[in-house]
Amino acid sequence: MKRIRYRDQHGVSWGDLRGGTVYPTDMWGKRSGGATTLSEVTLLAPCEPKNIVCVGKNYAKHIAEMGGSADDLPKEPGLFLKGLSALSNPGDPIVYPSWTQELHYEGELAVVIGQRLRNVSESEALDAVLGYTCALDVTARDKQRSDLQWVRGKSADGFCPVGPWLETDLDPHDVRVQTLVNGELKQDGHTRDLIFGVPVILAYISSFMTLEPGDLVLTGTPDGVGPLKVGDEVTVRVEGVGDLTNTVEADR
Amino acid sequence: MKRIRYRDQHGVSWGDLRGGTVYPTDMWGKRSGGATTLSEVTLLAPCEPKNIVCVGKNYAKHIAEMGGSADDLPKEPGLFLKGLSALSNPGDPIVYPSWTQELHYEGELAVVIGQRLRNVSESEALDAVLGYTCALDVTARDKQRSDLQWVRGKSADGFCPVGPWLETDLDPHDVRVQTLVNGELKQDGHTRDLIFGVPVILAYISSFMTLEPGDLVLTGTPDGVGPLKVGDEVTVRVEGVGDLTNTVEADR
Repeated sequence: MKRIRYRDQHGVSWGDLRGGTVYPTDMWGKRSGGATTLSEVTLLAPCEPKNIVCVGKNYAKHIAEMGGSADDLPKEPGLFLKGLSALSNPGDPIVYPSWTQELHYEGELAVVIGQRLRNVSESEALDAVLGYTCALDVTARDKQRSDLQWVRGKSADGFCPVGPWLETDLDPHDVRVQTLVNGELKQDGHTRDLIFGVPVILAYISSFMTLEPGDLVLTGTPDGVGPLKVGDEVTVRVEGVGDLTNTVEADR
Repeated sequence: MKRIRYRDQHGVSWGDLRGGTVYPTDMWGKRSGGATTLSEVTLLAPCEPKNIVCVGKNYAKHIAEMGGSADDLPKEPGLFLKGLSALSNPGDPIVYPSWTQELHYEGELAVVIGQRLRNVSESEALDAVLGYTCALDVTARDKQRSDLQWVRGKSADGFCPVGPWLETDLDPHDVRVQTLVNGELKQDGHTRDLIFGVPVILAYISSFMTLEPGDLVLTGTPDGVGPLKVGDEVTVRVEGVGDLTNTVEADR
């Protein structure tokens, strides 16, 4: 089932998408009003997070391309946060900030939480997932390297496009994760290669931080990361979900 | 003027506190209902953040005590984020997590934003401040050192008590910032020693991340940080604001 979050003339709502028809619901799929059509709504990021928690270094080939050693894989998920001001929607522009010379794409499978998670086991974790979507972890690589922590490098305005919708029925360990820039395939990973799969990630986070309904978890990027320039069209494609596409614009 | 955020039998509200009387308002002080008394309400963290942005390494003596060199002061504010799940209220317990052996206090002056801030100059920044308060940046020092980024070390549940209220009239460059543990003075700093003052911090953050009304900014901790143990009562005292007190409890 595809669940969307959208804006129309009535405001912001969630809905189930079947064919081209939108059936309004709450976040969890409870029906709440008359149907409309996809062409009449604007898609929004399908989440309402209090926290955006991200896993770094979760694919061995990406660790290698960043200069790490495959003999030195992480023993626990390595986390960072993205600020909520970074969140943006399908189709929103990615503004290339004037203070970076090295803006990179990192395409990822993202998880949206449906039920509160606190100290859950790996076997319980997936029951609390609302759905899966695509996320672009936009990164200012030069500032990620130079700053005290990864705040400017990861959390600038618009650095986290998410969408286009949630797929509620998906095996998160069996999907391809691809990134295309101007139609050219740049990243081509598969979640079977995640060092820490979704249940491990969620159980780990929930061991110290309560995850709330609407929270967003980015699972890490495969190898093939690289630079963006003004005018580039970036698409994150998660198999079984769909395409998230955003375009890089100049800072004005 | 002291502005509080509180819960009573009617729900959660803001209010102005004069003597022992609470005059309900919105966040910005617009009057909204009949008066009540302080003893009838429960104080909450006086903020409603989308982001909690913190400055690390903002007092030279603290940099020195952490092993840094006074000859190598930061050129720009070094930032990190605290997750929203860390936010807690005056009097809330600080749970000592089972996964750390080194829980530390860091008392700080905190700033709550009143107006949206995006690309503001230093001279404009203070106009957008709603008020000032006390914050305790609870830190799992061992995990801060060992993890990829400072997430578990800084953002575990309850790691950010804030309060007891906002002082809306304060010169943020002329206040003492003290931390007491069980009544014993442990930190005794002064904001005149901030490497980056509040206008510089806010202008810097707003150069890449929009700050929204209700957002929380922690300005950094002076020297004297140290360990907490179960049963300790920690007070952060900001001159001109008041005392924020929380007690450390065992993890159950």
